[in-house]
Amino acid sequence: MKISSNFDSGNIEVVNIRENGEIELMIRKDTNSDFFQWFHFRLTGANDISCKIDIINAGQSTYPDGWKNYHACASYDMIEWFRVPTTFENGVLTIDYTPSNDSIYFAYFAPYSYQDHLKLIHRSQVSEICRMEVIGETVQGRDIEMLIIGDEGIGKNIWVIARQHPGESMCEWFIEGMLDRLMDDSDPVSIKLLEQACFYVIPNMNIDGAIAGNLRANAAGMNLNREWAAPSLEKSPEVFHCLNKMSEVGVDLLLDIHGDEAIPYNFVAASEGLPSYNLALKRLEEKFKQHWMDVSPDFQDEFNYGADKPGEANLTVCSNAIAERFGCLSFTVEMPFKDNDNLPDPVYGWSPERSMLFGESVLNPILYVVRELEF
Amino acid sequence: MKISSNFDSGNIEVVNIRENGEIELMIRKDTNSDFFQWFHFRLTGANDISCKIDIINAGQSTYPDGWKNYHACASYDMIEWFRVPTTFENGVLTIDYTPSNDSIYFAYFAPYSYQDHLKLIHRSQVSEICRMEVIGETVQGRDIEMLIIGDEGIGKNIWVIARQHPGESMCEWFIEGMLDRLMDDSDPVSIKLLEQACFYVIPNMNIDGAIAGNLRANAAGMNLNREWAAPSLEKSPEVFHCLNKMSEVGVDLLLDIHGDEAIPYNFVAASEGLPSYNLALKRLEEKFKQHWMDVSPDFQDEFNYGADKPGEANLTVCSNAIAERFGCLSFTVEMPFKDNDNLPDPVYGWSPERSMLFGESVLNPILYVVRELEF
Amino acid sequence: MKISSNFDSGNIEVVNIRENGEIELMIRKDTNSDFFQWFHFRLTGANDISCKIDIINAGQSTYPDGWKNYHACASYDMIEWFRVPTTFENGVLTIDYTPSNDSIYFAYFAPYSYQDHLKLIHRSQVSEICRMEVIGETVQGRDIEMLIIGDEGIGKNIWVIARQHPGESMCEWFIEGMLDRLMDDSDPVSIKLLEQACFYVIPNMNIDGAIAGNLRANAAGMNLNREWAAPSLEKSPEVFHCLNKMSEVGVDLLLDIHGDEAIPYNFVAASEGLPSYNLALKRLEEKFKQHWMDVSPDFQDEFNYGADKPGEANLTVCSNAIAERFGCLSFTVEMPFKDNDNLPDPVYGWSPERSMLFGESVLNPILYVVRELEF
Amino acid sequence: MKISSNFDSGNIEVVNIRENGEIELMIRKDTNSDFFQWFHFRLTGANDISCKIDIINAGQSTYPDGWKNYHACASYDMIEWFRVPTTFENGVLTIDYTPSNDSIYFAYFAPYSYQDHLKLIHRSQVSEICRMEVIGETVQGRDIEMLIIGDEGIGKNIWVIARQHPGESMCEWFIEGMLDRLMDDSDPVSIKLLEQACFYVIPNMNIDGAIAGNLRANAAGMNLNREWAAPSLEKSPEVFHCLNKMSEVGVDLLLDIHGDEAIPYNFVAASEGLPSYNLALKRLEEKFKQHWMDVSPDFQDEFNYGADKPGEANLTVCSNAIAERFGCLSFTVEMPFKDNDNLPDPVYGWSPERSMLFGESVLNPILYVVRELEF
Repeated sequence: MKISSNFDSGNIEVVNIRENGEIELMIRKDTNSDFFQWFHFRLTGANDISCKIDIINAGQSTYPDGWKNYHACASYDMIEWFRVPTTFENGVLTIDYTPSNDSIYFAYFAPYSYQDHLKLIHRSQVSEICRMEVIGETVQGRDIEMLIIGDEGIGKNIWVIARQHPGESMCEWFIEGMLDRLMDDSDPVSIKLLEQACFYVIPNMNIDGAIAGNLRANAAGMNLNREWAAPSLEKSPEVFHCLNKMSEVGVDLLLDIHGDEAIPYNFVAASEGLPSYNLALKRLEEKFKQHWMDVSPDFQDEFNYGADKPGEANLTVCSNAIAERFGCLSFTVEMPFKDNDNLPDPVYGWSPERSMLFGESVLNPILYVVRELEF
Repeated sequence: MKISSNFDSGNIEVVNIRENGEIELMIRKDTNSDFFQWFHFRLTGANDISCKIDIINAGQSTYPDGWKNYHACASYDMIEWFRVPTTFENGVLTIDYTPSNDSIYFAYFAPYSYQDHLKLIHRSQVSEICRMEVIGETVQGRDIEMLIIGDEGIGKNIWVIARQHPGESMCEWFIEGMLDRLMDDSDPVSIKLLEQACFYVIPNMNIDGAIAGNLRANAAGMNLNREWAAPSLEKSPEVFHCLNKMSEVGVDLLLDIHGDEAIPYNFVAASEGLPSYNLALKRLEEKFKQHWMDVSPDFQDEFNYGADKPGEANLTVCSNAIAERFGCLSFTVEMPFKDNDNLPDPVYGWSPERSMLFGESVLNPILYVVRELEF
Repeated sequence: MKISSNFDSGNIEVVNIRENGEIELMIRKDTNSDFFQWFHFRLTGANDISCKIDIINAGQSTYPDGWKNYHACASYDMIEWFRVPTTFENGVLTIDYTPSNDSIYFAYFAPYSYQDHLKLIHRSQVSEICRMEVIGETVQGRDIEMLIIGDEGIGKNIWVIARQHPGESMCEWFIEGMLDRLMDDSDPVSIKLLEQACFYVIPNMNIDGAIAGNLRANAAGMNLNREWAAPSLEKSPEVFHCLNKMSEVGVDLLLDIHGDEAIPYNFVAASEGLPSYNLALKRLEEKFKQHWMDVSPDFQDEFNYGADKPGEANLTVCSNAIAERFGCLSFTVEMPFKDNDNLPDPVYGWSPERSMLFGESVLNPILYVVRELEF
Repeated sequence: MKISSNFDSGNIEVVNIRENGEIELMIRKDTNSDFFQWFHFRLTGANDISCKIDIINAGQSTYPDGWKNYHACASYDMIEWFRVPTTFENGVLTIDYTPSNDSIYFAYFAPYSYQDHLKLIHRSQVSEICRMEVIGETVQGRDIEMLIIGDEGIGKNIWVIARQHPGESMCEWFIEGMLDRLMDDSDPVSIKLLEQACFYVIPNMNIDGAIAGNLRANAAGMNLNREWAAPSLEKSPEVFHCLNKMSEVGVDLLLDIHGDEAIPYNFVAASEGLPSYNLALKRLEEKFKQHWMDVSPDFQDEFNYGADKPGEANLTVCSNAIAERFGCLSFTVEMPFKDNDNLPDPVYGWSPERSMLFGESVLNPILYVVRELEF
């Protein structure tokens, strides 16, 4: 019996493995940072053995509330990721499972690897309506890719960025669903949107952190979604370059795609706390949210972070910073690590498939408000 | 050089073929009927020959307006159906085209064969949430299949029937798109709908006519969509059995899927002319239509047949008959043979792909009104 | 509960259906002929009912030995065809099975429909190395299609024809496998073969009979494989046109693909009984057979029809007639309806998948002897 | 314009990039070693720019003969890898190409990434006839996976190992083709083989080196294929663990899969130089080679390394060491980086597709000799 995590987005430390299936593990911290919650490891040689896998430092993780009613993801073939029985007691997360194959992966959520990312970028770029641009380099020197879909310079500039927090892998499934629909030349929503807007999409804002198996930090240990007030080329180049590009192009709508550890619903955070917040923006936000709810039962607006108080928005956060700077509609979009409790799936929980369909669905509310994006 | 039509939904008569590519053809009439407009034939041995194919009786067809701005469909592989240069002058429809393979099919619209139909029925029935029922036999003794998706007896009864007019093959592409989405267990719209409704779907109401290459008639020469006041077991068994089944089950919503020869848009015909028409129904119709427009730019409500005057609805027509009998929301849905002029596609025109996506999209307005279906 | 056969290659007559699942059926005779053995029907409304289906005239069929150790084919989705418990006693073939879906097909072998045939022809013709030619019409006026793969006029002329006996549907699966490999531009065997030979392939010699659900006869009631001495345009146009084309092109190798009702092995019949038979031909036959055995365990040479005595070959049979006329290597290839008892598959028996792989494998012995085809 | 190689198996150093498309690069050495030849990089921002890419240290690489008549591989979508115009003069390898997309990969051969490797391992292990075992760890601590196909302990033990030299990526395409055929339960060759033998397959013997973008060395700088006389746990654990496992299981046939930089053919190196070489082994080698030639025109035995002189075999080389130790049939299999000059492909050269088909084909000669493997 053996545990390994020496692969893309792997994260675990082995404390103890007993051949009877009792296993003790610890999640290691993000690079240069104290955050930790993402795990991803492989257990081999445990076919038909009843395993009790304890993650003993779960109680000290960044979001201990994330473990309540959480069920770990597992896969034998790296394609189908199902949920396995998981409990959280006395600060220990316990997975009870008897594998039925020689190798089984466990992860906080179905991973989206750097190789998957590169394949997404490159099968997209060969579309006639898609361009690819490297906007800069990560801390560790990897290219940050932006996909541009549609005609630049004529119409609204719509930005969709994802995985500032690298452990929120559902974000890149969301992007994949959205991109595939956007480039489907039979889809009337996409055709209509691309007549009026150009999309700037960054599928992975934090490539280093994703490869490293981090929850929230980039390779310099920074939480990128607190860097938008004053990004630095040294510590948060991912934000620095993105913001530069946004300034160059302009922003009429921003969606910043995230995953939430604790809340078992899809929701958005809007701009209520901004100095510049006003009724026109509020109405546009409501229109967008209402239409998304109307087209996708996976979106709702009841359970969320609550609105910031007037003037109390945190302007280091991306969607706030962008809304304030560009005077535009801007949302942080959150998907659950757990499940959508309005439409729970006992086998898969919230899943890559659901995330992709949710990403497809977002084109509807965008089209619904696209004409009003300058207000 | 040779023309043949001795296959599923084939329809043409050869008047003259010259080896220089000048070809004269006639569309034959529907079985036991004077309707004619559907054509479907194969031209072989004309690779690299500049062909001028005249359909010389096009001007006498059932819908001569259908030929204005119409472009014929063609295919080399029976999968991709593209449009070819077509003109209509002096009552003759002329296709000018130089094939680049040894065999090329031409058709009024991309066909949906009986074999395709049977494969759709059978791959659907193996879904755990789908049942199949034979509700009776056609004039020529073929089984009429109904698919039942969802739990019977708990919730609203939603009926979707298609191809009363067999030449309107886009209808079965619409049904295929709708069914595949409905049975996708990751799609939140489908999950939510099936919590509240059961679908009764008849993908092909006129199997005999479809095989025969008819435009509008069944094998007894009847226009099924004028048989709903008093269907007969002898002449219109397809309607007879469907109506019986509807009476047995009940109807809370009916969609009757059609294609329109002349109008280059998607639209619906509603129930304004019914004796029982009322404000509640009107509001529900408006709500359904508005939401469909909101989710699919392929739907619109500007170009259509115009509303019937109060009390002047033709009660032999399916959607009217059903709305009146069951007091329910009921629409005739029309797709173009030509193109959607709001979003034209110069290569494919209105197509199987667009029809399937349009069929997927209809689940949204259904979900939007499902709770109000008893009014 | 209902039995129907009103579809492509359907064949059954209902004698009696009891709601307890006791069903009595008869196979009807081939068109204008006394042959009968092929059956193909659909049973609906029998989900979860233990059915006992008696084919009461099986004992009088053309090959009663075909029923010994035979298991009927069944399918719920028209894709996967599995075997079901079947017995033959006192002249009655009995299928004992409890369907687990609303509709189930039963057939003598997995059908290959006319629509499948047309799709095979047309997806093949779009390959750059494939041409399609209509060589004439069947009795009922359908086009007889020939595919030409490779460069004509430079190299050996290799003919592969199939389904003279229309009920032997495994033949067209064989052809599909062979064609797909032949047109795979990465396959070295295919590349090498097409440098030295051109293939003339007729995937279905008896289209009318196949659609009609016949075992052996064409629409005029003729056994095409007894028509090669003197085919007639009226009664056996399929052979007439093929033979004309062969005379025009020349034949260096002929494979005539068949299914055998009784013998549970793959084998060939060669030319031992021909007047012109000689040692050179015998050696070439042996070389071909030995290599096929070497590359495919599904081929063997122990169980077969036995060699014709010298000079006693039936020259009305295709492979004999062609060998004698063109002085070429020529085989009748036989696959089982039952199973390959050397490598039995209890779930599927001999199957479409195995037939396709067997068709792929035949390119190896062809390449192995191609240089020696003129002897 | 930008060059990057910060990804799986990336290898390049940038000397100079001019915006007019003149680019100078160097291949860096393998980890802790002087070998170098493998390159793999991405060029972005060069759409429509005529590029002249010079690899200026090519002349000093491990196999300068590898550059003669060599054409570099390129891809826009990471799926299709085509060849681009490449010349070698005065020690400089020059690629002349005008990209038609924003990002283009160049590589010595189509890469097979670690992620691809893991997906191959895991989709294989879910087959009922496949087990997976971790036999040890690489220098950098990664799991070394072995797939076991068939029933252990009953029949011959067939070993197939690949990528001792990590830059020879065609080896893992070969393995993928072989595995997929071996686990196809319709393939008679595979069925028959697995009745008589169990396969032990190590798809990647040098995972660290593959990820690092090495040509020949592992992470400790060792050429694994010179370590078989005395592998060390510290420097060559990959060989150490494999040899242990072989000793435990036994070896009746070994295939060690490689790529050759210089020779444009597929071939094998056999055991002529072994102390224990004998006529029985020689005959078995000949039989294996002859049959492989007979079934695949991609195999030949004319161009190769030449036979070792009697007694002069290098016993540090895997296939020699294993043949000597286990007294078994054993081959080093070589595929070209360039092309198979017997069947050249001007567009793709030797390719993943060809490698996979070649891997499928190897099952034939194995079956052909399997009974004689104990001699």
